[in-house]
Amino acid sequence: MPRVRVAVNGYGTIGKRVADAITLQDDMLLVGVSKTRPNYEALAAAGKGYKLYVPEGREEEFEQKGIRVSGTIEEMISKSDIVVDATPGGVGAKYKPLYVKHGVKAVFQGGEKPSVAEASFNSLCNYAEALGKSSLRVVSCNTTGLLRLICVLNREIGVRSVRAVIARRAADPKEVGKGPVNAIILNPPSLPSHHGVDVKTVLPWLDIATAAVVVPTTLMHVHTVIARLKRNTGVSEIIGILEQAPRIILVDSGKTGVRSTAELAEIARDQGRPRGDIPELIVWADSIRVDGDEVMLFQAVHQESIVIPENIDAIRAAASLASDPWESISKTDSTLGLKRWW
Amino acid sequence: MPRVRVAVNGYGTIGKRVADAITLQDDMLLVGVSKTRPNYEALAAAGKGYKLYVPEGREEEFEQKGIRVSGTIEEMISKSDIVVDATPGGVGAKYKPLYVKHGVKAVFQGGEKPSVAEASFNSLCNYAEALGKSSLRVVSCNTTGLLRLICVLNREIGVRSVRAVIARRAADPKEVGKGPVNAIILNPPSLPSHHGVDVKTVLPWLDIATAAVVVPTTLMHVHTVIARLKRNTGVSEIIGILEQAPRIILVDSGKTGVRSTAELAEIARDQGRPRGDIPELIVWADSIRVDGDEVMLFQAVHQESIVIPENIDAIRAAASLASDPWESISKTDSTLGLKRWW
Repeated sequence: MPRVRVAVNGYGTIGKRVADAITLQDDMLLVGVSKTRPNYEALAAAGKGYKLYVPEGREEEFEQKGIRVSGTIEEMISKSDIVVDATPGGVGAKYKPLYVKHGVKAVFQGGEKPSVAEASFNSLCNYAEALGKSSLRVVSCNTTGLLRLICVLNREIGVRSVRAVIARRAADPKEVGKGPVNAIILNPPSLPSHHGVDVKTVLPWLDIATAAVVVPTTLMHVHTVIARLKRNTGVSEIIGILEQAPRIILVDSGKTGVRSTAELAEIARDQGRPRGDIPELIVWADSIRVDGDEVMLFQAVHQESIVIPENIDAIRAAASLASDPWESISKTDSTLGLKRWW
Repeated sequence: MPRVRVAVNGYGTIGKRVADAITLQDDMLLVGVSKTRPNYEALAAAGKGYKLYVPEGREEEFEQKGIRVSGTIEEMISKSDIVVDATPGGVGAKYKPLYVKHGVKAVFQGGEKPSVAEASFNSLCNYAEALGKSSLRVVSCNTTGLLRLICVLNREIGVRSVRAVIARRAADPKEVGKGPVNAIILNPPSLPSHHGVDVKTVLPWLDIATAAVVVPTTLMHVHTVIARLKRNTGVSEIIGILEQAPRIILVDSGKTGVRSTAELAEIARDQGRPRGDIPELIVWADSIRVDGDEVMLFQAVHQESIVIPENIDAIRAAASLASDPWESISKTDSTLGLKRWW
């Protein structure tokens, strides 16, 4: 079976991880990656042997730094069946006409408006609806974390409403210029935050309201989720459901001493995870509190990597490489080595 | 009318602020303050002219540093009608027999177990019940912030249940050895956190569950509160109620640009507030979201100073200096200059 040819437009935090993940798939071929500036990430891409494409007219800038350029971004698009757009938020919409012009399918990221694509996407929620679509939007990291939990609980028990509070990391580790250094910022002050609104792009029927604060850390987001289910439940039932779910890891602070994002990051480094990534949603088993139909729990989201498995599945859904969601999910997860900690 | 003689045992974060507040009351006399170590805070107390009392046998340690000692802690207690115990959490219980021995009433802090005192206390909730008690416990900063909001809403509309998520400051500004520097810590991982349990020491009938995470900042705590009231309400009704309430300041991020704890701290400094303190509970007016009987909002708590007005009222209640809560509250608030920002 011929592999689907995939380009990655934008080789930043998400793009470089998606590119690496594509090279692990036996049904995909990485055409190349694009970069607008010849910085350390461009050097690393070239060092890995990825074909590098740049904006027209800037080839010399790269060549002067000793970075070999394979062509322009438009040339990369024209050689592809599908493009993963990992450009900065809002830039994807500007590239969309180029993708349409060349008849190339597109997977956008959550920084774009929902209207950029035919559907917003999460593997555990709406893979079947995404099959064969010409464009998909993988929702952002916090939305992906919320959707994994909600769709798993909704499939097994049914979810009536969700209230969630997000303690957001202030910056990614590489972003040296962002703050705050010493403050808690309401993000935004007016409620609800956009995260719940974004969840509704995938689950329009859900009663959800979220609040977010930005705090001075770079490692992960932490969510406090309060979900009301369609019937009464118990802690052991919830643990059983989450244990069986893909892309969710349960940790027990009592057994492991893991009570913060710092210890999760250390485990990922100790386990030899590439870049110390944690693409799984982390749920603290001993945080789960059930009161009738209400479930309250803590979960952590690694902002840099949680959407990577969903990007791979989105390629597979749009390109109709697998019609069964579980076929794609299990292939993605085994190639990325997910859910194997101890 | 003779003033009630008040000692402050422990001249740290809370003790020094309570001592300053006592000197502003025309019905109280500050007997003195105690300190166990001759550090910069002891020097500052002596510099202000406060009589300093120390543990027996350590007088020389202080005198060698040029700090004049007025006697032992037991001597300070014996000269007082009431003591505010602001010793570190758990130490107050060890001092309690000394207070009992000298027939001195005591106001403990929230770091002590509820059983240390006859009642846990918040001025807006249970002043009348606290009248004449031999011992009271002023609940901790986060609990005080929650209780101010809950008791005001409960008096005007009625509160059925509360869910709240607390983003806790990691350390006070003076605590150089505490972390985290770069992590979000579940505090604790198991839910609910003690804060809601502590609210129930004052409001035992309330359905409340709280969650807390510690984040790398020193300025203030931020709460996301989700309260279900006894009937449907609207944003303007909630704003009207909170505007009328003592010790609550409403801020509007749209009008003022205040969207974080850093800007609140800057206002307090600009306003010449002593130590940059904010003893009021800060509620963001434009965060208030009402959905039927559910109210969701952001509020901020200045951990170092929010309990100071309640300590003054607790002295007045225990010493029966004012039988009407509003008499004490308005006296405390006008002497401390509360709720006058612009």
